Amino acid sequence: MNKIITISRQYASGGREIGKKLAEKIGAEFYDNKLLEEAAKGSGIHQSHFEENDEKRSNSLLYFLSTTYGQGGVPFDDTLFFATMNAIQKIASEQSCVIIGRCADYALRDFSNVVNIFITAPMEQRVKRAEEIYGVESKHIDDYIKRIDKQRNSYYNYYTDRQWGKPQNYHLCIDSSALGIDKTVSLIEKFVQDYYANK
Amino acid sequence: MNKIITISRQYASGGREIGKKLAEKIGAEFYDNKLLEEAAKGSGIHQSHFEENDEKRSNSLLYFLSTTYGQGGVPFDDTLFFATMNAIQKIASEQSCVIIGRCADYALRDFSNVVNIFITAPMEQRVKRAEEIYGVESKHIDDYIKRIDKQRNSYYNYYTDRQWGKPQNYHLCIDSSALGIDKTVSLIEKFVQDYYANK
Repeated sequence: MNKIITISRQYASGGREIGKKLAEKIGAEFYDNKLLEEAAKGSGIHQSHFEENDEKRSNSLLYFLSTTYGQGGVPFDDTLFFATMNAIQKIASEQSCVIIGRCADYALRDFSNVVNIFITAPMEQRVKRAEEIYGVESKHIDDYIKRIDKQRNSYYNYYTDRQWGKPQNYHLCIDSSALGIDKTVSLIEKFVQDYYANK
Repeated sequence: MNKIITISRQYASGGREIGKKLAEKIGAEFYDNKLLEEAAKGSGIHQSHFEENDEKRSNSLLYFLSTTYGQGGVPFDDTLFFATMNAIQKIASEQSCVIIGRCADYALRDFSNVVNIFITAPMEQRVKRAEEIYGVESKHIDDYIKRIDKQRNSYYNYYTDRQWGKPQNYHLCIDSSALGIDKTVSLIEKFVQDYYANK
């Protein structure tokens, strides 16, 4: 049985690194930005559009007025969303994979072999990580972090009937600072093994 | 170092059973209703008052008007809350323990050796558990379950500056139905071991 793991994450909580290491350990393909490549291929829409609109919605009236309408009057960002959902479902039906963000838990809600995970970390750890790993430079990094979370939250809540970061949506939510990245990966690996042994 | 584990839980998610089994495995004292006994002893207030007001607040005006005021004009349910917080802090400073509910994570927010856990389960599993284990009989068990969660939520949010069931408050949130009770206990045991090995 394919192992399909979705990882949602607060910004700079270590979710991406955890997902990458987990994928290596369980022999699954890792999809973060590569997913956008697949969505572009599958839809014929240029990848740059997926990158520009990645996990965010524009709420402004100006954007609304200027938005390009596709076939059947569907707003362009909705078209991008549906193309992303299609790509996620295609990937998950073909192989074991770890997918980061992009409402993948929602896209795969009718699949029975999916483990949904949410990664958090305290703000001070995330500030440190944003500086060290992502090279974010700002006097107000915490504001920047909160803004990215807000975007992800708004994107998820708009497109799904769920709430981002509610434990009810996930099999496992972990604060990555409690054990550190590598032991968090090991814990998730144990969870995943036990989960699929049960199936 | 004492191991101090707090377990918050959706009603009928298996949190109590998980806590009891975890306490046995790690050699810690288990506090669920026994906590109320300790709070009664420590405060000199009769245990029945703690039982009647356990993890719930009365919002009604009638209750407000009829409530007994203690020393310094503190409403009686606040007095009960503070006595419970004192009991939790006393217990946690003396021994390894697993404490169920009662805002224990908040009571122990200044302790550095605490692991906070939240247990969830899908509604259909909780309905089954409420019927089988707790013997709840009702045509509308799901409404009853939601009401108890609402009480716990309102009690926690009133007395703390946090939100009940937000993953940010906990080191680990687990859906107990994913692995079943015993393997969930084993996973938490591994988490707890790794956590205290790091300290």
